[in-house]
Amino acid sequence: MYSEHGYELLSSKGIKIGDRVRVKRKDGLVVEGILLPRYSISKKPTIVVKLDSGYNIGIRVDTIVDIKIVKKEEVSLKGEAGSPAVMPLIEKTELPAKKPLVAIIGTGGTIASKIEYETGAVKPAFSSEEILEAVPEVGYIADIHAESIMNILSENMNPEYWEQIGRIVAKYIESGIDGVIIAHGTDTMGYTAAALSFAFQKLPVPVVFVGSQRSSDRPSSDSALNLVAATLVAAKAPFAEVVVVMHGEPSDSYMLVHRGTRVRKMHTSRRDAFQTINDIPLAKVYPFEQKIELLKEPLRKRREEELEAKIKFEKKVALVKFYPGMEPEIIDFLVDRGYRGIVIEGTGLGHVGDQLIEPLRRAIENDVVVVMTSQTIFGRINMNVYSTGRKLLSIGVIPGEDMLPETAYVKLSWVLANTEDKKDAENLMQRNLVGEINRRHTYTVYPRWLY
Amino acid sequence: MYSEHGYELLSSKGIKIGDRVRVKRKDGLVVEGILLPRYSISKKPTIVVKLDSGYNIGIRVDTIVDIKIVKKEEVSLKGEAGSPAVMPLIEKTELPAKKPLVAIIGTGGTIASKIEYETGAVKPAFSSEEILEAVPEVGYIADIHAESIMNILSENMNPEYWEQIGRIVAKYIESGIDGVIIAHGTDTMGYTAAALSFAFQKLPVPVVFVGSQRSSDRPSSDSALNLVAATLVAAKAPFAEVVVVMHGEPSDSYMLVHRGTRVRKMHTSRRDAFQTINDIPLAKVYPFEQKIELLKEPLRKRREEELEAKIKFEKKVALVKFYPGMEPEIIDFLVDRGYRGIVIEGTGLGHVGDQLIEPLRRAIENDVVVVMTSQTIFGRINMNVYSTGRKLLSIGVIPGEDMLPETAYVKLSWVLANTEDKKDAENLMQRNLVGEINRRHTYTVYPRWLY
Repeated sequence: MYSEHGYELLSSKGIKIGDRVRVKRKDGLVVEGILLPRYSISKKPTIVVKLDSGYNIGIRVDTIVDIKIVKKEEVSLKGEAGSPAVMPLIEKTELPAKKPLVAIIGTGGTIASKIEYETGAVKPAFSSEEILEAVPEVGYIADIHAESIMNILSENMNPEYWEQIGRIVAKYIESGIDGVIIAHGTDTMGYTAAALSFAFQKLPVPVVFVGSQRSSDRPSSDSALNLVAATLVAAKAPFAEVVVVMHGEPSDSYMLVHRGTRVRKMHTSRRDAFQTINDIPLAKVYPFEQKIELLKEPLRKRREEELEAKIKFEKKVALVKFYPGMEPEIIDFLVDRGYRGIVIEGTGLGHVGDQLIEPLRRAIENDVVVVMTSQTIFGRINMNVYSTGRKLLSIGVIPGEDMLPETAYVKLSWVLANTEDKKDAENLMQRNLVGEINRRHTYTVYPRWLY
Repeated sequence: MYSEHGYELLSSKGIKIGDRVRVKRKDGLVVEGILLPRYSISKKPTIVVKLDSGYNIGIRVDTIVDIKIVKKEEVSLKGEAGSPAVMPLIEKTELPAKKPLVAIIGTGGTIASKIEYETGAVKPAFSSEEILEAVPEVGYIADIHAESIMNILSENMNPEYWEQIGRIVAKYIESGIDGVIIAHGTDTMGYTAAALSFAFQKLPVPVVFVGSQRSSDRPSSDSALNLVAATLVAAKAPFAEVVVVMHGEPSDSYMLVHRGTRVRKMHTSRRDAFQTINDIPLAKVYPFEQKIELLKEPLRKRREEELEAKIKFEKKVALVKFYPGMEPEIIDFLVDRGYRGIVIEGTGLGHVGDQLIEPLRRAIENDVVVVMTSQTIFGRINMNVYSTGRKLLSIGVIPGEDMLPETAYVKLSWVLANTEDKKDAENLMQRNLVGEINRRHTYTVYPRWLY
């Protein structure tokens, strides 16, 4: 995986991936850590070393004056779970002769991006094949069939693209594949993962979304390890669910497997931006140990069910965030434009200002399904506590339970495309279909702020 | 503070607030813990006992068959910082003869609410005077002037109410008061706190918002301790900022002081729902120890500056959350209705779908100020990384840095009401005025999910 000078330098010294090395650079900098597989295709040959701090550093080969294998000095580890100081890398020989078959579908986004050197901006460009070439570890885990089906930034995703992706995923599953990976931009990955969760409520194999918060040109890129973890899940996980696999903490120790209906991008740039909200993640993946650790009971086991696909989404659905002073005409505008569903991101337990009550009543009388969620993100809607909630219930607003606003939006789009009757639609919105409603919150589902 | 039977029962036994008691109920239940001040005005006399678990339990006096003072059995505390097993309560004698003067302004919300027994719903009803009667501890800390200026649920707050509250707060400050408390519903408390932060950029004393997540009828109510902590801050804090004081964790160990521009209600119902985002809180308050611990440098010290009030907000400002498939006409609708400002809650580093670029260009050409924030909540806008961001910058969209979408909305409303020139407005949006933009994020500002 290290070509050109990088490979020559390493092989001339008998150094291989996973060795602990000490590297001295021309400018005097000395770096010690584990030699990682090369994550990026950059113009200058570069090696990547994982420091004991967990951070990866890239060193250009032409700046190296010395590199050698060293032993780790003893340090007390004080039981830091999940972050062994030296992690074994994947050994090709450990794997069985017949590997699972996994499809990687490229849709665009950072995980398949490169820098435009003229402007300095990142633009999607690589095909899935090229990703595979850049991260050969995935080939040790599974036989890969890669296909780039579109190349769009995820902010340009929409219900039509969800359907397009869904149809291709269904085609692969029907062909008998062991797992499907969808490389997707991170901005709206949660929405698309929710969409396919509702579209594939019966599913024989895992459907795994994966993305990257840092482009593969950067030493701190998460793309290679996320893809390795996603491949492990697609090829070997015991469950058959639509999930998102991304870094679980800033270092490379583990990735988390999030249910598609419960996951949210919670940070603009951190590698551990993706988090499960109002539930715990489905599993942890230790990529270097090739280990998948279940954290909760899956909805479906692998090969338990045949595929049942309902890949249709209603486009006339809106997600509207309420704020103090919001003018009610926005609701009228949506009703007049023929919207069939509105998800409100209200305040607290599920409230909006009084000025919205009449327009919402009119919307519901015009057969619009209105669902209430909360802008607090965490917690559950309860419209029985305060008078505003009771008013909203009385005009027919549907409480969105503990659904994420984004998931409720996607669900309503799916429900309205697959149900004729309004009452059925309202009932479906209140029923847990694929983990989007969690009846019981343990204390650990709320994060901690540590000061 | 225990009237009627409650007081008689306690005084006949020589028991006072802060004693460790063992209470036996008619039904055989035995409860041991610290006798707390009574938090609620309920129809039946009730005592409140804080269990060692941190939970408060209310016991109706007419169900008690025995109550006596006990000594705590030795248990190893294992250094649980901030939660001493036995907490001294406020002693009247500890306080100086001349107390600070604090105004409590009631605006409505749970902190001033009671159950409607007919319907079971909670409705605002108590005046600030009644709160004061229910929580006499605040009277030990400061001389109180209470005034109920409105009685509305906070989902009905709007920029006009912000101005009304602001004018009354200014009046109190000009009269020379030592601190102002605003009792406010929690749903939109963050928005109003941000509004007054921008309105009072020079300020001689603290302006403290306080609310309650659980109504005062419930043994688990947080209203009394939040009010005690808010009074400590208003009367004694060394800083002069607009802040929110609420529970810092589910137990009663400490409250957090959040800067008004950085605070967000992050949970529908938890007592520790309010959290500082993209920064650390200003201070911790230990109510039983009457201690305020600063966590960071304040913007302004007490009595350092004279009041400078600019209490005006533009109503024609909208907060619009983007979602995949969003129709662009919503932007045109706002422009056509004469909106002067739009805050977008975009995806990731600050993106929207391509379909919104043209309507946003038209908005900006029509002198609308458009500001970008992120629905990830955590992190910072960076529109230089991807092509969509660069397009948005080129048409004149203002990056909202690490501002909360809600704070950016309030700020834009304030800026447009107080600035004639569009360029000035755009510059102000990118300048840190009162802590709403934090140039440096430490690792601790992102919460941890523990699995």
